[in-house]
Amino acid sequence: MKKNPLHGLMTPASVAVVGANNNPMKMGTMQALSIIKDGYRGRFYPVHPREKTVLGHRAYPSAADLPEAPDLVMLVVPPDQVNLLVDQFGSLGTRYAVIITAGFRETGETGRRLEEELKQTAARHGLRFLGPNCMGIINTQLALNLTVLPVSGEPGLLGMASQSGTYVTQTLSYLRKRGIRFSKAVSVGNEADINIVDALEYLGEDEDSRAVALYIEGIRDGARFIEVARKITRHKPVIAQYVGGSAAGARAGASHTGSMAGPDYLYDGVFKQAGIIRVHSVEDLYSHGWALASLPPLRGKRIAVVTNSGGPGTAIANTCDQEGLEVPGFSDALQEKIRPLIPGHAASGNPVDLTFHLDAQVISTVIPGIIAESGEVDGIIIHGAMSHGFMRDVYPHIKEMTGDISLESLLKRFEPDLTQTASLPWQYNLPLVISSFFDSEDNYTTAYRERGVPVFDSPEKAARAMAALLRYKEIREREKAVLPILPKRSTQAEAILQEAAARGQKALDEYQAKKLLAAYGLPVTADYLAKSAEEAQAAAEAVGYPVAVKACSHEILHKTERGLVHLNCKSAEAVRAAFSAIRSAAGAAIPVIVSPMIRGERELTAGVTWFPGFGPAVLFGLGGVFTEALRDVTFRVAPLCREEAEEMQRDIRAAALLGEFRGMPAVNKVKLASLLEALSYIPLLHPEITEMDLNPILVSGPDPVIVDALVVLS
Amino acid sequence: MKKNPLHGLMTPASVAVVGANNNPMKMGTMQALSIIKDGYRGRFYPVHPREKTVLGHRAYPSAADLPEAPDLVMLVVPPDQVNLLVDQFGSLGTRYAVIITAGFRETGETGRRLEEELKQTAARHGLRFLGPNCMGIINTQLALNLTVLPVSGEPGLLGMASQSGTYVTQTLSYLRKRGIRFSKAVSVGNEADINIVDALEYLGEDEDSRAVALYIEGIRDGARFIEVARKITRHKPVIAQYVGGSAAGARAGASHTGSMAGPDYLYDGVFKQAGIIRVHSVEDLYSHGWALASLPPLRGKRIAVVTNSGGPGTAIANTCDQEGLEVPGFSDALQEKIRPLIPGHAASGNPVDLTFHLDAQVISTVIPGIIAESGEVDGIIIHGAMSHGFMRDVYPHIKEMTGDISLESLLKRFEPDLTQTASLPWQYNLPLVISSFFDSEDNYTTAYRERGVPVFDSPEKAARAMAALLRYKEIREREKAVLPILPKRSTQAEAILQEAAARGQKALDEYQAKKLLAAYGLPVTADYLAKSAEEAQAAAEAVGYPVAVKACSHEILHKTERGLVHLNCKSAEAVRAAFSAIRSAAGAAIPVIVSPMIRGERELTAGVTWFPGFGPAVLFGLGGVFTEALRDVTFRVAPLCREEAEEMQRDIRAAALLGEFRGMPAVNKVKLASLLEALSYIPLLHPEITEMDLNPILVSGPDPVIVDALVVLS
Repeated sequence: MKKNPLHGLMTPASVAVVGANNNPMKMGTMQALSIIKDGYRGRFYPVHPREKTVLGHRAYPSAADLPEAPDLVMLVVPPDQVNLLVDQFGSLGTRYAVIITAGFRETGETGRRLEEELKQTAARHGLRFLGPNCMGIINTQLALNLTVLPVSGEPGLLGMASQSGTYVTQTLSYLRKRGIRFSKAVSVGNEADINIVDALEYLGEDEDSRAVALYIEGIRDGARFIEVARKITRHKPVIAQYVGGSAAGARAGASHTGSMAGPDYLYDGVFKQAGIIRVHSVEDLYSHGWALASLPPLRGKRIAVVTNSGGPGTAIANTCDQEGLEVPGFSDALQEKIRPLIPGHAASGNPVDLTFHLDAQVISTVIPGIIAESGEVDGIIIHGAMSHGFMRDVYPHIKEMTGDISLESLLKRFEPDLTQTASLPWQYNLPLVISSFFDSEDNYTTAYRERGVPVFDSPEKAARAMAALLRYKEIREREKAVLPILPKRSTQAEAILQEAAARGQKALDEYQAKKLLAAYGLPVTADYLAKSAEEAQAAAEAVGYPVAVKACSHEILHKTERGLVHLNCKSAEAVRAAFSAIRSAAGAAIPVIVSPMIRGERELTAGVTWFPGFGPAVLFGLGGVFTEALRDVTFRVAPLCREEAEEMQRDIRAAALLGEFRGMPAVNKVKLASLLEALSYIPLLHPEITEMDLNPILVSGPDPVIVDALVVLS
Repeated sequence: MKKNPLHGLMTPASVAVVGANNNPMKMGTMQALSIIKDGYRGRFYPVHPREKTVLGHRAYPSAADLPEAPDLVMLVVPPDQVNLLVDQFGSLGTRYAVIITAGFRETGETGRRLEEELKQTAARHGLRFLGPNCMGIINTQLALNLTVLPVSGEPGLLGMASQSGTYVTQTLSYLRKRGIRFSKAVSVGNEADINIVDALEYLGEDEDSRAVALYIEGIRDGARFIEVARKITRHKPVIAQYVGGSAAGARAGASHTGSMAGPDYLYDGVFKQAGIIRVHSVEDLYSHGWALASLPPLRGKRIAVVTNSGGPGTAIANTCDQEGLEVPGFSDALQEKIRPLIPGHAASGNPVDLTFHLDAQVISTVIPGIIAESGEVDGIIIHGAMSHGFMRDVYPHIKEMTGDISLESLLKRFEPDLTQTASLPWQYNLPLVISSFFDSEDNYTTAYRERGVPVFDSPEKAARAMAALLRYKEIREREKAVLPILPKRSTQAEAILQEAAARGQKALDEYQAKKLLAAYGLPVTADYLAKSAEEAQAAAEAVGYPVAVKACSHEILHKTERGLVHLNCKSAEAVRAAFSAIRSAAGAAIPVIVSPMIRGERELTAGVTWFPGFGPAVLFGLGGVFTEALRDVTFRVAPLCREEAEEMQRDIRAAALLGEFRGMPAVNKVKLASLLEALSYIPLLHPEITEMDLNPILVSGPDPVIVDALVVLS
C-alpha cells in the first residue's frame, strides 16, 4: 500500500514559510506566529526577499539560501509566485507544501491553468501538497499549527478534514470554549494534489484521532472515498456534513473551492455505504464528533436520565425516544436506592428528577454512580449539574445578606472536589453526556469539559449526541461489506449492445433490454417478439393466456399513454386485435412483445444513474405510480455487495410492504438483493449504458419480476 | 368576552410572599429577593410567623395582619399549608396567587385531592391562581420577577408560557447571554386554575409581546387552544415545542406536572390548525421565537448571503434551499457595485464571499446596505462580522510585535462606531440574521444583540431562523379559517344509530355505515342489501354489472381475508355464486351488500379517532395497502373548515398523486374537502361514535367515492 503523504506532511522536522513578514495583521505573519508561539519544536525558516529577520527569526532571501531543504514549506504569496516557489523548493528537495494562496481553479479558466501548472511542477519534483486555497494544518501532538489563530491546551482526540478552511481556523475559539480538541486538522482547499480522501485515510490510520469529522462540499473520487471510509468505520467512527446537495449549495461550493457537488440523496446512500454518520450542521459535526471521539462506545440502547427539572428531563426522554434510544423504567430495587437521595415528591423511575437542589454532587456523582452500578442502562444523560453558574447569577441578589462576602469567597464555599465527577464513563465504560444551561462560568461544566465529557447547552442536543453513539454502534455491528467480484462480461449482452450501436439506437427496445438483463440473471418476464398477428397469437399460446401485448420500439416512450399497451388479453382474438390496434396507434410496422401477465399488488422499481465523481449508482424504491408521487427511493454506488442490497430494502419508508403484508407473502429478500447486485454490475461491465430504469418490478408470490425495462445508451 | 385573569395577576400593585425568610439559600427567599432587587416598584409584604423583618422589609405574622389585601400573593410553603393560606388571603380580598409549592396532582392520589380542595377554596373566594408546582412569573415592563434568578436589562419582546418552570428560570442567564429578552413569562405548573391556554390568550393580547413561545407537555382543552391560537396567529407569531409525543416523553411529563399527552402526529395537526410554528428543541423555541419577536416580518423568499468564508456561506445557502428559501444570483448591476469592495478572486454573485478580511464594517454595513438598497432580496444573512473576538484570540501571538500594547488598547484601535451596524432591518424593513463563531467577546456580536438582531453560533442556525420567519409569512398569508356551522343532526342517521344501539351493536355494518355517511352527503357507493341469491341478482341488475358482493355484518372484520368479498362479478351467475360462497364462508345466514365496481388506481383513506383533551380528530391520507405501509397521513381536530380540509390534501407526502397524474385527472379537491368537512361533523353530532374508518376511498374519474366504511360505537 502506498504511504499516505499526510504522514510526512503532518510531521515535519522543519518548516519554511514564504509570505510572513513583521506586520502582525498580515495573514502569512499570523500563520508563522502560530508556528512559533504554539510550541512547535522543529526548525523554522522564514523566507523573505528583503527582511533580515522575521518575527525574531533569521530570514532567508530565497529557498536556495536555506541551510537545509525544509521538510515542509508553507506558501502565503500572490498566486503568480506559487509555481516558481514550488519549483525552487522542489529542486532543493523539500517534499511537502501547504499552499494557502487562493486564486486558482475556484476563480475560473486562468486560475485553472495556473493550478494545472502547479500540479505538474510539484509532480516533477515528487513534492506533495495541500491546497491551494486552503487554511493550513494542525497537529496538536507536535504543537504544530499552521493556521492564523492560536491553538492551546492538551492534544485532542478528534481528527478533522475540511473542504472549508474556516472549520479548522475561525472556529478554534468556538471549539476551545466547548472543550472540543482536535488531534489533527487538515484544510484541503482546492485538492489539486492531496484530497479529502487522502485526509480521511490518514486520520483513519492516525492513532491520536479517535474519531474523524469531515466537512464536505463535493467528492471527486467517490469509489475510493467509499472504499477508504468503509475500512475505517469498522473500527473508528467517521461523521460528515455535506452541504453541496441543493442547487444553492452546489453553486456556492463551486465558487468556493471549485468542488463538484452531487444530489443530497446520492450522498445519503454514499455515507451509508461508507458507514459514515451524517449530520446537517457544523455544530453537530463537531459536538457529535467529539462525543464519538471522547466517550466509551455505547453498548446498548438503554439510557438513564437524571435531571434537576422536569422540563429538560421530559425533553431528553422524548428526544431519546425519537432517536431510537430507550428510557426504561428503573427496577424497584434501583428506585429504592435513589429515593432517599431525592425529595419525597420527586420522580425516581427514570427520568430521576431531583427538582431544585443545591448540592450538585448528588446529581452529578452519587445518583449516576448508583445507576451505573445497577447495570440497568447503557448510558447516562444528566441535566442540571451546576453550582458556580447558579451562584454567580444569584450573587447580586444575595450579596448583602451574606455580609457582602466577595463572589470568589462565596464560590469557594460551593467548591466540591470535582476530580472524580467526570470519571464515571471510564470507570463503568458507559457514555455520559451532560446538558446544562450554564457555560464555562460553571465549575461543573468546566470540570466535565476538562475531562472530556461533552456538555451541551440544551437537553435535546445531549440526547442527540447520545444517539450519534447509537448510530455508530449500529454501524460497528452491521455485517461487513465484502466488495463483490464482478462477473465476466456476457457475450450475449455485448452482442445486443453492439447491434444496437450499429443501428444507431440511443436506447434498447424493451425486448433487447430484457434479454440484456436476463443475460446477467435478472428475473424478467418470458417475452416473445412478434412481427405479425399470427406470430403474436402463437407467442400468446406459448406464454399461456392471459398475456400482455406491447409495442416494442427503442424510439417510443410512454407506451401506455399512447395506447401501445394491451393488458390481460385472454384469447387469440384479443391478441390479434391488440396487435392491429398497436400497429395503427404506432403508425408504423413495429413488432410487439407478448408477455405473460404478472399479478402482484406490490410494485417496485430499480434503476441506474451516473453521477460525476461516483459513476453509476443504483436506485431502489416503490414503483408504479408511486415512484413519482412518493419518491420513496434509496441510492447506492455500484457495485453493490449483498449487505448493501439488503440494506436498501430496509431503507425505504415503505419497507413494511416488503414483509408479510395483508395476506401476501414476504418478498424474497435474497432474490431481490440478487437482482439489485446484478443490476449494479451491468453499467460497470458496459459503460456505454448511461441509464437503466426497471419499472415496474412486480412481486409475484414472493418473487420480484421485471415487467418493463428501459436501457439508455451513450 | 371574559377578561383573562393574567391581566390582573401579571400587573399587581402589591405582592405578598409567604415562605421567604432571611436564609438566602432558601427558594422562597430567592424569589422574594427577585421582587425586591430587580426594580419592582409596587408594595411588597413578606409574611412570616416569627421573623420581624424579612430581607429588610417589615414582616407580617399572617395575612390578617397586613395593612391591605395585596393584589397578589406568592406561596412557597409546604403543600399542607397552601389551602389554608389561600383561604386566608381570599377572605382578605386578594384576587391572585402564584403557588410555587409542589406536591399536588403530579405526585398521585393524595396530591390530587389536595389540589381539588385548593381549587374549591380559591373558587369560593373568586381568587385566580397559577400553579401549584410552578416557578413564578416575569413582567419586564414592571420589573416584576417572581423567579429564583435575577432578571435585568431592557424589557423584552418575547412572551413565554411554559409547562416547565425551568424554561422561565434556569435559562435566564442562557437567554441574557444570547440577547433574548422576555416581555412576560409565565410558568403555569399544574394548571389547577389558570392554564397554558389562558397564558397564550393573555400573551396574544399583550402589546409588549411581539411573539409568543410555548413549551408544552400536554394540552387539556384542545378546542379552546386551537380557537385562541388561531385568532392570535393571524397577527402575531406563536411558536411551540411539544415534548409529550413519545411514550418516554409522556411518562416523564406525567410525573412532572401530571400533564396529559397525545401523540406527536396529533399535535402536528393541531399546531397547523392553530397557525403555530412547531420546533423540536428549546434552543429553536427561544431563538426562532426571538427572531420572530425582534425582526421585521419577511416579505418574500429571496435571501442574500454575505460571508467572510466560503464554507459557512455554502452551508447557509444549502440550508436556505432545504428550508424553502431562495438564494438568487444577483443582477450584474448589483454585482458591479459589490465587486470593488471585495478581493479580486472573491465571489460577488450571492453568496458574496469577502474571504479573510479585517475591516468588518464592509461585511456588516457597506455591502448589506448596497444589497438592501437594490431591492433584490427580502432578507439578509451575514456570517463573519467580527473584530474583537478575533483580536482577542490572536492577541497572545501578536502582543510583543505591537510593543506589548495592552489588549484593551489594541481593541480600541479596532473599535468602529457600531451604532448604525444593526439598524439595517428597520431602515429597510428587511430581516437580518447573523452567524458568528464569536460570542459576547466580540463587539459585533454584542452590538447586534443589543439592538435586537439575532446572532447564532453557526451558519445553519441563522438560516433556520430566517426560515422561521418564512413559516410565519406563510401562516399570515394563508386563508383565514372560518369556524364551520355544524349542520342539523340527521334524523336518518339518528335512526340508524338508535337501531344499532337497540340491537347492542358495537359497530355499524357496512350498509348502515354508508347510509349514515350518505345522510350527511358523503359520496358512498350506491349499495343494495340482499338477503337471498335472488335479491342479490336483482340488486346487481339494478346496480349494473360488474358488481362487488360482500358479506354485511357488524360482527365481521377483515372480510377480504375470510373470503367474504367477491369483486368484479360480471353476470347473474357470478353474483349468485358469490352469494352462496359468502354464506358458506360466513357460516351464518347474513345478508350481503351488492355494490357497483368502482375503478380507480388512487386509493385514499379518511377516518375519525378520539383523543383526550381534543375530542374527535379527522385523519386523511393514502389508502389501501399503503395506509399501513407508509403511514402517509395527516390529522386535524374536528370540526374542519374548508381551508383545513384543503390543507390536509397538500399535507401528505403523496400530494402529487392528487393532482393530474399519469393521464389521470386531478382529484376534485372541493369534493374531497367537502367529504372531509362532513366527516368531521359526524362525531360531534353523534358522540356515541368513537371511531370511523373510510378505507378505501377510490378516486373515480376526478371524484372520491367511499368504497368501504367502518363506524365503531361506544
